Amino acid sequence: MNVRMILKTLGYLLMVESACMLPSMVVSIIHKQSDTMSFLITIIILAVLGLLMSRIPIKNKNFYTRDGFAIVSLGWILVSIFGALPFVISGAIPSFADAFFETVSGFTTTGSTILGEVESLPKGILFWRSFTNWVGGMGVLVMMLAVLPAAGANTVHIMKAESPGPDPGKLVPRIGKSSKILYLMYIGLTLIMVVFLLLGKMPLYDTLIHTFSTAGTGGFSNRNLSVGAYNNVYYEIIITIFMFLFGVNFTLYYQSLKGNLKSVFKDEELRFYFFTVLAAIILITWNLCGTTIFNTIGASLRHASFQVTTIISTTGFSTANFDLWPSFSKTILLLLMFVGGSAGSTAGGFKSARCLLLFKSIKHEIRKVIHPRSVNTIKYNGKTVDDSVVSGVKSYLFIHMVIFSISFLIISLDGFDLISNFSAVLSSINNIGPGLGVVGPMGSYADYSVLSKIVLSFTMLFGRLEIFPLLILFTPTFWKRVNI
Amino acid sequence: MNVRMILKTLGYLLMVESACMLPSMVVSIIHKQSDTMSFLITIIILAVLGLLMSRIPIKNKNFYTRDGFAIVSLGWILVSIFGALPFVISGAIPSFADAFFETVSGFTTTGSTILGEVESLPKGILFWRSFTNWVGGMGVLVMMLAVLPAAGANTVHIMKAESPGPDPGKLVPRIGKSSKILYLMYIGLTLIMVVFLLLGKMPLYDTLIHTFSTAGTGGFSNRNLSVGAYNNVYYEIIITIFMFLFGVNFTLYYQSLKGNLKSVFKDEELRFYFFTVLAAIILITWNLCGTTIFNTIGASLRHASFQVTTIISTTGFSTANFDLWPSFSKTILLLLMFVGGSAGSTAGGFKSARCLLLFKSIKHEIRKVIHPRSVNTIKYNGKTVDDSVVSGVKSYLFIHMVIFSISFLIISLDGFDLISNFSAVLSSINNIGPGLGVVGPMGSYADYSVLSKIVLSFTMLFGRLEIFPLLILFTPTFWKRVNI
Repeated sequence: MNVRMILKTLGYLLMVESACMLPSMVVSIIHKQSDTMSFLITIIILAVLGLLMSRIPIKNKNFYTRDGFAIVSLGWILVSIFGALPFVISGAIPSFADAFFETVSGFTTTGSTILGEVESLPKGILFWRSFTNWVGGMGVLVMMLAVLPAAGANTVHIMKAESPGPDPGKLVPRIGKSSKILYLMYIGLTLIMVVFLLLGKMPLYDTLIHTFSTAGTGGFSNRNLSVGAYNNVYYEIIITIFMFLFGVNFTLYYQSLKGNLKSVFKDEELRFYFFTVLAAIILITWNLCGTTIFNTIGASLRHASFQVTTIISTTGFSTANFDLWPSFSKTILLLLMFVGGSAGSTAGGFKSARCLLLFKSIKHEIRKVIHPRSVNTIKYNGKTVDDSVVSGVKSYLFIHMVIFSISFLIISLDGFDLISNFSAVLSSINNIGPGLGVVGPMGSYADYSVLSKIVLSFTMLFGRLEIFPLLILFTPTFWKRVNI
Repeated sequence: MNVRMILKTLGYLLMVESACMLPSMVVSIIHKQSDTMSFLITIIILAVLGLLMSRIPIKNKNFYTRDGFAIVSLGWILVSIFGALPFVISGAIPSFADAFFETVSGFTTTGSTILGEVESLPKGILFWRSFTNWVGGMGVLVMMLAVLPAAGANTVHIMKAESPGPDPGKLVPRIGKSSKILYLMYIGLTLIMVVFLLLGKMPLYDTLIHTFSTAGTGGFSNRNLSVGAYNNVYYEIIITIFMFLFGVNFTLYYQSLKGNLKSVFKDEELRFYFFTVLAAIILITWNLCGTTIFNTIGASLRHASFQVTTIISTTGFSTANFDLWPSFSKTILLLLMFVGGSAGSTAGGFKSARCLLLFKSIKHEIRKVIHPRSVNTIKYNGKTVDDSVVSGVKSYLFIHMVIFSISFLIISLDGFDLISNFSAVLSSINNIGPGLGVVGPMGSYADYSVLSKIVLSFTMLFGRLEIFPLLILFTPTFWKRVNI
């Protein structure tokens, strides 16, 4: 491990985080809130520490995949620790464990909260909370590389470690350029959404908060009842559409801009994602119509669409307390939590591409059983998929389950019911936000113990970083070759 | 598909089932019960139909893996349909769907029941119910091959389709001989257990019932409170030990008899199975001691040991209502439901060998990430494991999850709470028996709808036949080449 190089890069990262806090401080100053100082202090700490670390002289330039992994995992832990400071200093969240949980939940775009109510919080703090969703959506380090290309002479390894999904968005040969294109499209889509919400006369502050949380598929709101507080069909339609859009592979937007519409509509992951959403909406609407929860088919359709999209895109806003819906609807939502958005989007979860590959591998296995001697391969978007890719996805599934089980077991020590614990872990590892029972849309993670909050924080990080970068920090072989 | 050959073999199978019912009829006659006629009628139907089918002349002798699969899956469905007749005819279970569920539950050694109470049932019926556990444990077709070696000129394909676990028990080169050796050891262990229970003065009838259910790792009892009804420490110790033993790969007993004790103790699956049981018992005992459920450490240890063994061996007896235990203990039991017994035992579940292989593959993946260019292989019991084996196990995991999800979704239409549904499906696919909530140790599957009962019946069959034999019945390609 190239310790100097890692520390130096982390230094740049802290400087970028320092800059990221400026808008929140400005919001705080404009609204004359009590939290200005908490941002100022944190910004200074980050800037000084970052500057010192970025001055570390480099002795050797060897840089491997494992160093990229170390930067990404340590980087995410560091920005979460420092990102928690404004919450603690301002007194909005006095306990550091709680503040760390909230910040990890923000950066990983999970959006689960330990706050019972948020409307009394200072405006700068709420802004920062949703801004972490936006920054985390595309990736903290991708942002650093977009802003400071000089920081990453070894960009490939960092991008590889942070990019979500089995297919990292390699748009153009030079990855540094890729990260810029990705960020430009991200900013573009974000601006379009801002315009649409403002057209519906949502206040600017609320618009920014909800746009950040939608774009990052995080789900933090400045209202206690989340998007449901507005009871506004227009907002819900706009947010539903954009939650869906931010769950789509960004490569497809790039191809659309270049005019390759045909290949976009033929994209197998997009189709899988679209039809899963459609089927889930139809089934839940049908199920809700058989109950007295909503009066009309229209209302059932409206809430079904919003909840399905918010869960599969792993955003986690709410407009209704789906914990009170019938078992069939809840089961569908629980199953959608497994699926998640598309690879190369800001959405979390297991990812549609992985599900699709695994479904294809079932067909493959059955064919192998019926015709043992025939040679057949798995194709994805017309191309033959290498066996090692499929094998990697399958391993990922099992490791996902192991991390899930460990987390599920530890938090069960707190004694909550199993479905609350199960959905809390499922929601954390897939970066969704709300679960069922205690952690349902109207609940919070406040009552879990400090140990459980730390475990769930790491579960969120495991989910967001897709396990390996963080997992290898826990292996002894990783620490063997330390170079100073 | 060689239809004639398949029908002929199924004819032999029905004749064997007819013979299997004789002991139950004898029990009924000895105890002068009301159910004698129900057995006589079924035995005659089976014998006549079996005789007719076994007379079908064979036109061609081509026989492939897929034919073996068809025999096994259709065979299991048929024996379950006919095995349900005594329940219906005697009036013990008037609904055919219920009787089918109970019989599938018996043959698959699941042991879940739709009966609220069993003590009022005729003795022949209860004997048959537990006897299905015993027959299903080693395999209905393995039994046929052991009794009628002439029936299976194509034994290999049938054994392959029915034998549980990734490593079918190929003891000696000739598989026909293997099935005989397996059955002899099975009978031997069963007799030893009978002797031990009789020594503890359990009545002969109860002894046979509980021995059959333990040997098959099924879990049907003739007492409403299951093994707990006796409140007898000696019985519990004996049953705990034998539940553990019947969850061990039978190949190891064969090796022990041949004197290879060293390789038995070095067997990685046995170690994994043993230490998982040990760790679970220690953790649950510790957890229970912190509550007021049991008064002493001894009582906690006693019930923890019994429940852990009954769940991991997928037997499903109960001595305590673990649904009332704290969340941590329940979570451990839920996780154990995933693991299951050893490959090549009568136990169901995902199997320890598969878990172990998957854990090894995680290490393998991590090594690959840290040292991308190093060549490394997975070893199991000292031998290098072929990539295709590991890949097959990983696929199996996903297919398992898909079947699980479909079943979970359909039964949620009945509106029971999610943890009841989740544990019901988990318990069914892993052939355990009790779950949590509605289907807890003191509950039953009675209140589920007919649709759910059929779905759960097929879930049990999927679990017992390890998915593929049954799954390919649902694929169109399988039905393409029908030869009459």
